[in-house]
Amino acid sequence: MSPGDSYNTYTVLSGGVGGAKLALGLDETLTRGQLSVIANTGDDFEHLGLKICPDIDTLIYTLAGIADPETGWGLNNESWQFMESLEKLGGETWFRLGDRDLATHLRRKELLETGRTLTEVTAELCRAMGVEASILPMSDDPVSTRIHTKEGALPFQEYFVRLQTEPVATGFDYAGSETARATADVLATLKHDSLAAIFIAPSNPWLSIDPILSLGDIKSTIIDTRVPVVAVSPIVAGKALKGPTAKLMEETGLDPSVTSIAGHYSELVDGLIIDEQDASLQDEIEDMGLRVGITRTVMNSHQDKVSLAEFAIEFAALLGGKKA
Amino acid sequence: MSPGDSYNTYTVLSGGVGGAKLALGLDETLTRGQLSVIANTGDDFEHLGLKICPDIDTLIYTLAGIADPETGWGLNNESWQFMESLEKLGGETWFRLGDRDLATHLRRKELLETGRTLTEVTAELCRAMGVEASILPMSDDPVSTRIHTKEGALPFQEYFVRLQTEPVATGFDYAGSETARATADVLATLKHDSLAAIFIAPSNPWLSIDPILSLGDIKSTIIDTRVPVVAVSPIVAGKALKGPTAKLMEETGLDPSVTSIAGHYSELVDGLIIDEQDASLQDEIEDMGLRVGITRTVMNSHQDKVSLAEFAIEFAALLGGKKA
Repeated sequence: MSPGDSYNTYTVLSGGVGGAKLALGLDETLTRGQLSVIANTGDDFEHLGLKICPDIDTLIYTLAGIADPETGWGLNNESWQFMESLEKLGGETWFRLGDRDLATHLRRKELLETGRTLTEVTAELCRAMGVEASILPMSDDPVSTRIHTKEGALPFQEYFVRLQTEPVATGFDYAGSETARATADVLATLKHDSLAAIFIAPSNPWLSIDPILSLGDIKSTIIDTRVPVVAVSPIVAGKALKGPTAKLMEETGLDPSVTSIAGHYSELVDGLIIDEQDASLQDEIEDMGLRVGITRTVMNSHQDKVSLAEFAIEFAALLGGKKA
Repeated sequence: MSPGDSYNTYTVLSGGVGGAKLALGLDETLTRGQLSVIANTGDDFEHLGLKICPDIDTLIYTLAGIADPETGWGLNNESWQFMESLEKLGGETWFRLGDRDLATHLRRKELLETGRTLTEVTAELCRAMGVEASILPMSDDPVSTRIHTKEGALPFQEYFVRLQTEPVATGFDYAGSETARATADVLATLKHDSLAAIFIAPSNPWLSIDPILSLGDIKSTIIDTRVPVVAVSPIVAGKALKGPTAKLMEETGLDPSVTSIAGHYSELVDGLIIDEQDASLQDEIEDMGLRVGITRTVMNSHQDKVSLAEFAIEFAALLGGKKA
C-alpha cells in the first residue's frame, strides 16, 4: 500500500520485546500517522512508589531507537548507580531500574498525579522521546495478569522477574478486566475508516496479547472488523524465540507448535504468518480456516524487522483483497 | 572529658553543611553512643513524589564520610544520568538529585510508607550507611520554614534553591510548629542523666536552628537544662562562611556580627564560641551575660573540624564547672 491509498493505517497489538521488534519494523516501513500500537498493560505494577509499565516502556524505547540492543528492554548505555546504592540501603533490587530508566517512571508518576490518564502521559513521553507512532495503552484502568500455579496465583512480575518463570503454570487470569474499559483511542484506532489491517505481534499470546483481548470491546471489535487480522507466530520450530511461551504451552497441555498458535487465534485472525522452518505445517493450519504466510520471522537484524513488517503488510493486503 | 565520666554524652542542634562539619568533628572526637544530633527538618519537602530531607541527608552523608567534599551536600563521586534524562522528559530539574542520592529518597519514602516514623527511618538509613552517632529529626510531624518577602511567603527550597536566596527577606515562620511535637527521642537526649553539654552548631540561626527551637518543648528544655549550652557563631568577621546568613541579617535589620548572634541566642546559651578574627568583641558579648570562647572556627580541613569540636567540649566543661 502507498500512503496515498484510502486504507493506509495499521494497528498492532503488542507486548514487550518481541512485539516491539515488529512494531519497529512497521514504524520504519510506514510514515507518520500510519501506525498505532495497542500496548499490553497487564504487566504494569507499582514498585518503590513508582508506576512501572514494562511493555509501554519497551515499545517507547525501541521505537525511539534508545533500547538496550542486548536485552531488548531498558535503555542503551544505561548506568546502575541508583540500584547499587539502593542495595546498600537494603532496598528491593529484584526489579532492575537503571538511572536513566528511572526518570521515565518518576516522570510518569508525576504526570499521572496531575490527573492525566495513562494514555495522555504515554503520548507525552512519546513526544519527549521522539516517537512518531501512537503507542496506546490498552486501558487507562488497571488490569493485572496473574499466572496460576499450584502455589496460588502469582502477579506477572513476581512470576516473570522475581521467580524467573520457574513455577509450573496451570492457567492465567487478568484481574480487573471485567470492569476495565478499553480506551476511546484504542477503539477509535481499531474502527478507523482508514484502517488497512490489524496485526497481532509475535508476543506471548497468554501473557501479552490475551490481556489486551480480555477487554471485551477490543475482542469484539477485532472479531467484527472488516479489515484483515494477521498474527505473527511467536513459536518457531516448536520453540519460543524469547521468554516462557513454549514452556507455558507445555505446562497448560498444548503442543508448542504454530498449529497450536493457529488454534488459539482461530476465532480472531484471518491469517497467520509462520517461519520458513514451519512451512510443512501450512496445510494443517489452512485446514483450520486460516490463510498462511510463510517468511523468515526470526528478527535479529534491523533489516529482519523491516522485511517481516513489509511481508506482513503485503500479506494483509492480499487477505484484504480476498476478504472484500 | 573521658568516656568514663558520668556526664559523657553531647547533643548538637544542627542544620546542613556548616552544622554537619561540627557534628563530624564531634563524632570523631567522641566514641560510639556519646553523640546525638538534633536535625532541622524545616527544609524537608516533597519533590517528584519523593520525601527529601536535605539537612538529615547532609548529616548522614557527612558522618558516613561519603559527602561531596566540594559542595558539602550530596554524595561524593555522584553521577547525574537520572537528572539528564528527566530534563529530556520535561521534568523539574531545579532541585538536583544525583543517581545515588536518589536511592536515599526512594528508600526513605518506601520505609515511611510502611508506617515507620521519620525518626525510625533515619536510624535505619544511618545503620545502612554506617553512621554511629544518633541523628534525630527534631520532629516526626511536618514543619515548614518559610521566608517572608515583599512578594509573599516562600517555602524554604523555593527561596534557597530555586531563587538562589535572591528575594529580600522580611521575616520567617515555621508553619506547623504550633502543632508539631518534638520527638520523644529528642526530648530524652536533651534530658538524659549523662548529658554533659548542648551545642548549637554554626548553622543559620533563622533558617536552621530556630525551626528546631520553634518546637516549644525543645526550647523550654534547653532553657531549663542543668548542663552548659554553647553556640558556635556562624558569623565570622561580619560575614557568613556559607549561605545567606549575613544577607538575611542585614535584610531584617541586624548588624551581621557575632554580637548580633550573641543577642539572638542570649536567652538560651551560656557561652558563645567566636572566631579569633572577632576577639575584639569579647567584652561586648560578655557584657550581655555570655561567656566567650575564642578559637579558630573556620572549618576547612578535617583537623579544623576536630579541633573546633575539642575546643567546644573543653569550653563547655569549663562553663559546666562554673555553672555547678
